[in-house]
Amino acid sequence: MHLKGRIALAVGAIAVAFVWNIPSSAQLYRLAATPKQACPSPTDSTTLFVEKLAHHRIGYGLTPSTASVPGPTLTMTEGDCLAVTLVNDAGRRVGMHAHGVEYTPASDGTPLNASCVAPGRSRTYVFSAPGPSTRTDGTIDPGTAGYWHYHDHCMGTVHGTAGIKAGLYGALIVRRAGDLTPDRPPFVVVMNNVSINNRIAPHTPVFRANEGERIEFVVIAHGDLFHTFHLHAHRWVDNRTGYTSNPADTERLVDTRTIGPADSFGFQVIAGEGVGPGAWMYHCHVQGHSDAGMSGILYVRRANGTTTKQERRALQRWKDEHMAGMGGMSHH
Amino acid sequence: MHLKGRIALAVGAIAVAFVWNIPSSAQLYRLAATPKQACPSPTDSTTLFVEKLAHHRIGYGLTPSTASVPGPTLTMTEGDCLAVTLVNDAGRRVGMHAHGVEYTPASDGTPLNASCVAPGRSRTYVFSAPGPSTRTDGTIDPGTAGYWHYHDHCMGTVHGTAGIKAGLYGALIVRRAGDLTPDRPPFVVVMNNVSINNRIAPHTPVFRANEGERIEFVVIAHGDLFHTFHLHAHRWVDNRTGYTSNPADTERLVDTRTIGPADSFGFQVIAGEGVGPGAWMYHCHVQGHSDAGMSGILYVRRANGTTTKQERRALQRWKDEHMAGMGGMSHH
Amino acid sequence: MHLKGRIALAVGAIAVAFVWNIPSSAQLYRLAATPKQACPSPTDSTTLFVEKLAHHRIGYGLTPSTASVPGPTLTMTEGDCLAVTLVNDAGRRVGMHAHGVEYTPASDGTPLNASCVAPGRSRTYVFSAPGPSTRTDGTIDPGTAGYWHYHDHCMGTVHGTAGIKAGLYGALIVRRAGDLTPDRPPFVVVMNNVSINNRIAPHTPVFRANEGERIEFVVIAHGDLFHTFHLHAHRWVDNRTGYTSNPADTERLVDTRTIGPADSFGFQVIAGEGVGPGAWMYHCHVQGHSDAGMSGILYVRRANGTTTKQERRALQRWKDEHMAGMGGMSHH
Repeated sequence: MHLKGRIALAVGAIAVAFVWNIPSSAQLYRLAATPKQACPSPTDSTTLFVEKLAHHRIGYGLTPSTASVPGPTLTMTEGDCLAVTLVNDAGRRVGMHAHGVEYTPASDGTPLNASCVAPGRSRTYVFSAPGPSTRTDGTIDPGTAGYWHYHDHCMGTVHGTAGIKAGLYGALIVRRAGDLTPDRPPFVVVMNNVSINNRIAPHTPVFRANEGERIEFVVIAHGDLFHTFHLHAHRWVDNRTGYTSNPADTERLVDTRTIGPADSFGFQVIAGEGVGPGAWMYHCHVQGHSDAGMSGILYVRRANGTTTKQERRALQRWKDEHMAGMGGMSHH
Repeated sequence: MHLKGRIALAVGAIAVAFVWNIPSSAQLYRLAATPKQACPSPTDSTTLFVEKLAHHRIGYGLTPSTASVPGPTLTMTEGDCLAVTLVNDAGRRVGMHAHGVEYTPASDGTPLNASCVAPGRSRTYVFSAPGPSTRTDGTIDPGTAGYWHYHDHCMGTVHGTAGIKAGLYGALIVRRAGDLTPDRPPFVVVMNNVSINNRIAPHTPVFRANEGERIEFVVIAHGDLFHTFHLHAHRWVDNRTGYTSNPADTERLVDTRTIGPADSFGFQVIAGEGVGPGAWMYHCHVQGHSDAGMSGILYVRRANGTTTKQERRALQRWKDEHMAGMGGMSHH
Repeated sequence: MHLKGRIALAVGAIAVAFVWNIPSSAQLYRLAATPKQACPSPTDSTTLFVEKLAHHRIGYGLTPSTASVPGPTLTMTEGDCLAVTLVNDAGRRVGMHAHGVEYTPASDGTPLNASCVAPGRSRTYVFSAPGPSTRTDGTIDPGTAGYWHYHDHCMGTVHGTAGIKAGLYGALIVRRAGDLTPDRPPFVVVMNNVSINNRIAPHTPVFRANEGERIEFVVIAHGDLFHTFHLHAHRWVDNRTGYTSNPADTERLVDTRTIGPADSFGFQVIAGEGVGPGAWMYHCHVQGHSDAGMSGILYVRRANGTTTKQERRALQRWKDEHMAGMGGMSHH
């Protein structure tokens, strides 16, 4: 498949549905082997291209030219069923394994379940995100809402260790009807070995927001190490949504959370609430990790979007602190 | 004590009660030093034999010939008081330390509290599992329900490091009245250094269940390392029971959980719910750990107990993937 | 500033307020740069002296002669605003960064926000602990109640790695109106690399209480390592307060908790409840860590304050176990 054709696949649901409904021979084989889907038919669809990037990285992208690390954030609402067609331009076996949602073995994205994608091929994965329901015996199916993620489970080892190391991961958010939504796209922080999004400070994200905006973080860990995510001057509720609707809730308020590989959480806070504009660090609180560059900035501007000299100086100071002797790319 | 005598101890509560009521001189010493028990008298009793196994392992067993790693799962309901007579056939000082339940110093199972068992001797530990209650000042005693565990705290070091390494651990479940119970015995996963139950894939457990059955996992960590337990295609509620009775609950849904040594949790899911039959991996998500063999299979058959060729092939593929260059036993 | 003058600053809020209201030129510069405070004016104030201690340690103290590791426990109630004047006698750049509470960039305590304290200088940090409130859009600000902590973020690296290693940390508790309060000062356990409060057994704390007293633990981790805090014979609720007011709560009961650097939690239990007096170990459950001395004792006496020979012998046994070959101070 040439580039133009691949881009055409990405322009909308219709093109993608075409691929999904009229499968190639490889897809026919797959469908024959997995008659049952986790949902009767997808309500939405997208294409993810797996592309080689600079610095030995590999990323997922909505188009071949926009592949990134992390990959695009996928957002579903309970009740949705998403078909994702993965187009493999990486030249190596890759795949897509999703956390939190429902899927049949054909969408497990593992060698075990024969659901990887060979170089130059594509494959459609189907992910269902049902909401809570009461079972026939009166017990409760809790649904699928959460701050999840997706990643390669095929490259390098049967657990996708080389794919994850190279950057094949992204956030997957499943919202419940009624959940609050943020004023900006989610800020995604993937703590992958001693890096954030495979980068180290000062090349880590500077997330910009205005005071008073509702912002959302999704924090994911990957690799071999454990981390503690800390955000300065803000705190959140350690529950499903990261905020509370009831001040009598007994859940813990946190500003630091321990996280191991493939664990994930998310939260929403009001930027600068009670503290005002500022350059607020987020960082891994493992001392050796933060010192090595697992640090970034939540840059809160005034409500009108302007900044003060103080914030600009702080941001510059953070960049200067981390420039000496650092390459910007993690070793991977 | 010869083998026949030891087996006699295991046949029932009467035999055990005999030992407990008419203590040997060693036990008299112990009772004199600890007049108070965590409960006035046990409601149940059992015997655990500590036996040497192949591959330098040591296990607890309900009989000498059935000792295993992990040891037998002990299940209590709040209100119970369990007497466990430990018979030490390991040739080294061992003991039993229980998490979650109540006990006096004599049942602490530590050198500190002089409650280990010398080679060739036995000792009765008493564990109480009271339910929630209101104290005289109106505050709440939260009870003892939980997914706990027991382990050696005597062998090798005063923290039982050699005993734990050898396999002296097991699950201890305390249920609350009204808790749902699973359709099959609990699946116990002990992440002990880079092993599951002191084994590595493909010699780790393949847990079998039929689609639609309520199944229960108990996950425990031990040793020196941290892990993340992940189960494919299923998710659970991160609370006391691992399921919810109220769809409005704010607790996090998870399919991966960070766990360090002696931490433990459990959950119940419906096998194959929304996803159907399949060979679903559970594994540590620390990449180096899963690649080294910390991986197993939840093998969900059709509701009628039959399997498909697809699942059988997936299971075989998993075995093949992990056979090359692996011994099956962890290095311990 | 000479010693006498510094002690005068510590005697009460009036002296401290003096410093705060009539700033030195350094403080004027700071105030000019940060016109906004997290609270309009402090409701309370204190002074913390940063002092060199034996064994290469550095501690915070309410007076120069009482500096300790950990530093003094600071306790606030939601609604409070605390001004802390930090007096730097350490001869190196240090600071104070607080978790959980609200502060402007001037009280961030980081090089980034130019809020460290040069040797021989002082600086006033202002921390606000608002309670829950309803925002104008109807959503909930969850407040700031929690078991938090403060630490250096300036010494050695921009993340305060050398300061934390030397002992510059302490507990910060924010209570919510109506929270239960303990019968004794909180027991603070800081798991800092392979030490507790920069000490190893038998030089770790022996916390003394009488049976039936409500006691409170605050557990904090620091450094580069992950730990699991375990307390023998007691369990608590894994929520904001560590206890429950409702026996139907679905939160997990725990006696072991995984904790990474700068994560923190606290809980209250009734000393010896259901188990009686005893020498009950608390320890890191990472086997290599506990064996290396990350172990201490909760020493529960009879309700009338007397002890039994059994407890005294257990305490002595614990000391003896840990004396051989251990220096008492961790390597830092």
